[in-house]
Amino acid sequence: MVESWSFLDTAESNFRPLVVIELAKGTKEETIEWFTKRIVDKKADGGAQLLIQPLVMENGVENIYLVGASHLRLLLGAETVGLVKECNDNSMRTFTYSSRKTFKHFADDNHNFLTMAECQYIIKHELENLRAKNEKMIPGYPQAKLYPGKSIVRRLLTSGILVQIFPLHDKEELKKLSHSWYGRVKVGYQPLDDIRCYFGETIALYFGFLEYFTFALIPMAVIGIPYYVFAWEDYDKYVMFATFNLLWSTVILEVWKRMCAILTYRWGTLLMKRQFEEPRPGFHGVLGINPVTGREEPVYSSIKRQLRIYLVSLPFVCLCLYFSLYVMMIYFDLEQWALDYHKENESNFSSLMLYVPSIIYAVVIEIMNRIYRYAAEFLTSWENHRLESSYQNHLILKVLVFNFLNCFASLFYIAFVLFDMKLLRQSLATLLITSQILNQFAESLLPYWLQKRYNRRMKKRMCSKKTDTDLSLAEQVNMEKEMGTYLGTFDDYLELFLQFGYVSLFSCVYPLAAVFAVLNNITEIYSDALKMCRVYKRPFAEPTASIGVWQLAFETMSVISVVTNCILIGMSPEVDALFPDSKMDLVLTVALIEHLLLAIKFIMAFVIPDKPRDIQMKLAKLEFESLEALKQQVRAFQMQL
Amino acid sequence: MVESWSFLDTAESNFRPLVVIELAKGTKEETIEWFTKRIVDKKADGGAQLLIQPLVMENGVENIYLVGASHLRLLLGAETVGLVKECNDNSMRTFTYSSRKTFKHFADDNHNFLTMAECQYIIKHELENLRAKNEKMIPGYPQAKLYPGKSIVRRLLTSGILVQIFPLHDKEELKKLSHSWYGRVKVGYQPLDDIRCYFGETIALYFGFLEYFTFALIPMAVIGIPYYVFAWEDYDKYVMFATFNLLWSTVILEVWKRMCAILTYRWGTLLMKRQFEEPRPGFHGVLGINPVTGREEPVYSSIKRQLRIYLVSLPFVCLCLYFSLYVMMIYFDLEQWALDYHKENESNFSSLMLYVPSIIYAVVIEIMNRIYRYAAEFLTSWENHRLESSYQNHLILKVLVFNFLNCFASLFYIAFVLFDMKLLRQSLATLLITSQILNQFAESLLPYWLQKRYNRRMKKRMCSKKTDTDLSLAEQVNMEKEMGTYLGTFDDYLELFLQFGYVSLFSCVYPLAAVFAVLNNITEIYSDALKMCRVYKRPFAEPTASIGVWQLAFETMSVISVVTNCILIGMSPEVDALFPDSKMDLVLTVALIEHLLLAIKFIMAFVIPDKPRDIQMKLAKLEFESLEALKQQVRAFQMQL
Repeated sequence: MVESWSFLDTAESNFRPLVVIELAKGTKEETIEWFTKRIVDKKADGGAQLLIQPLVMENGVENIYLVGASHLRLLLGAETVGLVKECNDNSMRTFTYSSRKTFKHFADDNHNFLTMAECQYIIKHELENLRAKNEKMIPGYPQAKLYPGKSIVRRLLTSGILVQIFPLHDKEELKKLSHSWYGRVKVGYQPLDDIRCYFGETIALYFGFLEYFTFALIPMAVIGIPYYVFAWEDYDKYVMFATFNLLWSTVILEVWKRMCAILTYRWGTLLMKRQFEEPRPGFHGVLGINPVTGREEPVYSSIKRQLRIYLVSLPFVCLCLYFSLYVMMIYFDLEQWALDYHKENESNFSSLMLYVPSIIYAVVIEIMNRIYRYAAEFLTSWENHRLESSYQNHLILKVLVFNFLNCFASLFYIAFVLFDMKLLRQSLATLLITSQILNQFAESLLPYWLQKRYNRRMKKRMCSKKTDTDLSLAEQVNMEKEMGTYLGTFDDYLELFLQFGYVSLFSCVYPLAAVFAVLNNITEIYSDALKMCRVYKRPFAEPTASIGVWQLAFETMSVISVVTNCILIGMSPEVDALFPDSKMDLVLTVALIEHLLLAIKFIMAFVIPDKPRDIQMKLAKLEFESLEALKQQVRAFQMQL
Repeated sequence: MVESWSFLDTAESNFRPLVVIELAKGTKEETIEWFTKRIVDKKADGGAQLLIQPLVMENGVENIYLVGASHLRLLLGAETVGLVKECNDNSMRTFTYSSRKTFKHFADDNHNFLTMAECQYIIKHELENLRAKNEKMIPGYPQAKLYPGKSIVRRLLTSGILVQIFPLHDKEELKKLSHSWYGRVKVGYQPLDDIRCYFGETIALYFGFLEYFTFALIPMAVIGIPYYVFAWEDYDKYVMFATFNLLWSTVILEVWKRMCAILTYRWGTLLMKRQFEEPRPGFHGVLGINPVTGREEPVYSSIKRQLRIYLVSLPFVCLCLYFSLYVMMIYFDLEQWALDYHKENESNFSSLMLYVPSIIYAVVIEIMNRIYRYAAEFLTSWENHRLESSYQNHLILKVLVFNFLNCFASLFYIAFVLFDMKLLRQSLATLLITSQILNQFAESLLPYWLQKRYNRRMKKRMCSKKTDTDLSLAEQVNMEKEMGTYLGTFDDYLELFLQFGYVSLFSCVYPLAAVFAVLNNITEIYSDALKMCRVYKRPFAEPTASIGVWQLAFETMSVISVVTNCILIGMSPEVDALFPDSKMDLVLTVALIEHLLLAIKFIMAFVIPDKPRDIQMKLAKLEFESLEALKQQVRAFQMQL
């Protein structure tokens, strides 16, 4: 151990900027001084022991700071956040500084041992864990109260002094990544490991799931194509397709768990210990004692929160659901009107008019989904959840229920009230295709185009014709800080979830849905990749071991789809004809088959192990080793006696 | 630390016998010498560092040994097995010798800090973990092979040299316990904490579940009584009863999880870390390297096991199921014959004869269950599972499937093929009552009577008229070693599981089932208690945190009961009359209600937290503390640099 902590404070020579901090314009001098001092202060003095440099801009704005850290500091930080890396013997282990020599690719002078995304994650973690000591308020802002243990950065953010913290892009790496990812048209897998290195596990796992899901849909699409080509209309073929579909959707969801375990084991997040969850930034309450930590922090009565949930949020969600159903009824009126119009004046124009109500409805659904999304976010944040995870769960639940009803209510109505299979097929097709086009446009192409226009103007203003990679650091920071912020994978998963609904809920009447889903997902991969690399600020990496609650959401959808498909099949005239004597027998048979299918689903979910055998073995080995180590400790202690 | 390890070896003066080891008659001298030496050897030399004494019997038999340990040894053993005890601040923590002073009731001279059951569990654990070093075989028995790391006790057991190991009863404690448990007729709870101290957590949890389940059935029983008293035969009342039943059964199973968490938190097992599972004693294979531990041990190809399971066990189980259905058909022939007989000669005798087939069938079912049980055990053991838990799961699955079909197939047949509700009610009553009587008799009263007779003879032979507590140690050991061995809670849970089936599957036709179940369970508590205290050898305590796979079994049963009850209600003439025009509407309504009930069940299971809030908080606190401690360690290490 040649280096020492004092080295960290002086080694400004090889300062590598990793994270950008933007303070509000006109932030008081004493605040800046205090904040930067806390950032560079030694750990022993309660600081973060990081490096910070002001960024001198051409236009003289001085409220932007660059944060970095020495190599040693980052290694110690990696231990603090509990990173898991690969060892020389190919096993994955939690990194500790004392055992650093046993890790693959580790060398004291190899500054690429930690990826840039990992370094930025460590710095974010250290900044967020910079806590108030005895300060009662932020110096210069008496209204921004502090208490011992409160995260300084979170208070600065909520009081608006800190505008944003974001990690810097690495232009060269990004260029390499985008080339191998979407730069050339090719058949093959995405470079998931590179994506993970650059954007972190949460985003890489989303792209992994998107890719997996697309591949998993291909068999459905392939089987679905002949239905369109040969215009098969006989129901026994649809029955076959639906049965295949139901079992297939169970299998792919189970196999995804295994794939996910393989990916996250390789990335180390499967083994990463969960960190203790701090209150989310927006959480507020009166100061009290947290019974778990024994620390002084805001507390908020759980009963009050329950009241808010059940007396305000729940009725509001119900009202929205009612409103959505009301809009649906208007759609059916429109549909009827278009049909009447077509009957009266049969023309090309009128037959085109037949599709108009569906398209309008699809657009309205998208708009309603987006407005509701804001309302749900507002309400959930007003419910004042203490933990981010609890906030997320309540938000996801609210949004899922509404989106599910909003998107599928009309289809359910057509299928099970109007019994109009032709209209169902037509609506399904219109809804699916319109929503896909809208999504692609609103999510990726529009922001990309806006960003591009903005960049052009920026460059013109800077009177230079450099390419992206030649930009100076100041120019790069200036450009990136204006980029939009990527708000997480929520919307992307939601889109896939609804798509899965379109594909599976009524698969037996419209086998072509899978084809459209596959086509959409292929372009989705490219447009999402473009969005990540070019449109948004680089997001902080977030370690994760699974797709979390979305697994449950997809599984629930696949259970619902068993029920809907069985009913649809039961309603078909061909199946009807098999039971000429008794409708009762038909219904009972369908019910029996449905229960059997559900039972098979649950048994399959139970029988297929969630982790492949070799991952299980590796995990068992690690567990065994840690138990052995503990035993050795006890034994060594006993021998001392 | 005044005492030292040398003290352990000499402190024979306060030797307290805890565990009895019985070797086979005629065991070679060199084997005994080697085995006892290994038991008393120091830990550093690979021994168990326990105390052992031969028991000198009046009749000169010298193959019985008593094992004990010093207080200090037991405390260190408690750390090794990871016991969790209550601290002075009322929190539960893993016991370590160095932090012993912080635990409640700890004092260096308080030898009751660890309960006798805990001491015996520690000794069992130490004996089982006594492993071969360089021995290639057991001295004196060249055919009993050993390899480094093989548990010596397990090899001695499988080669028949070691007849049995069992813990000694504590006559005084047992007297106290049995007095407060079943000694007097009283209304009130069982002394669960005392049972746990004496018999360990697994058995205490069974009695806790039995008691809880009995209390939970009381509301059903109370609501069921008026149906009998007023002879209510109208189905709308049955519908009410069934609906209540379905929701209630979900609630009680969810609430049990919470109760279980409260109990096991108090007992410390909720927090106990899982130990690494060693191969079960009966496991055999060729010596190879275990990929997880890297140790040399027998390995057995997983493919061979799969083949045995799918090519032998599965067909055998199917054959048994078929046989069981065949026996059922014979029962229905008998039933028909009895009915014909009754019609021909109407007399008291002939009307009594009506019950005979059911009673015979109930007896046959019990006999078949028991025979199948042996077959299942043989097959599962032949499948050669490496781990005890995997063995248990396969055994439970085999037994559950068969017992379920065997017990309920006739009822399903009567209900859904014959549509004879009167016969269903009668069969249900006969099956339930007969099986309860048979069980009580076969499980407790018969062994108790046999044991009592044997004890009387023993005492007569010893020519003394002492009471139980006055017996000498040698006499006590001699008596206890002949007692039956308690084979675990499997049969007891199975009995409850089947009872739950009788109560819930057809609850809407026979509300009185709950009354019989409550009555049976009250006597069951007493007879099981008697069985534990008087009939069987004391079993080793087994720490456990839940009732394990039985929770799943009960939940599955309650899902099936939703389906059966909905069908039964749908079939009732009263409900039929509500839909005079269309049978279709009836079936669809019933199916809709069934799906709604199932959805409600799953939502309820999801919404009700598995652990009460205060236990959650305590667990979160412990987790927080351990994370903080880890962080402190890292910080301390970083400050050293």
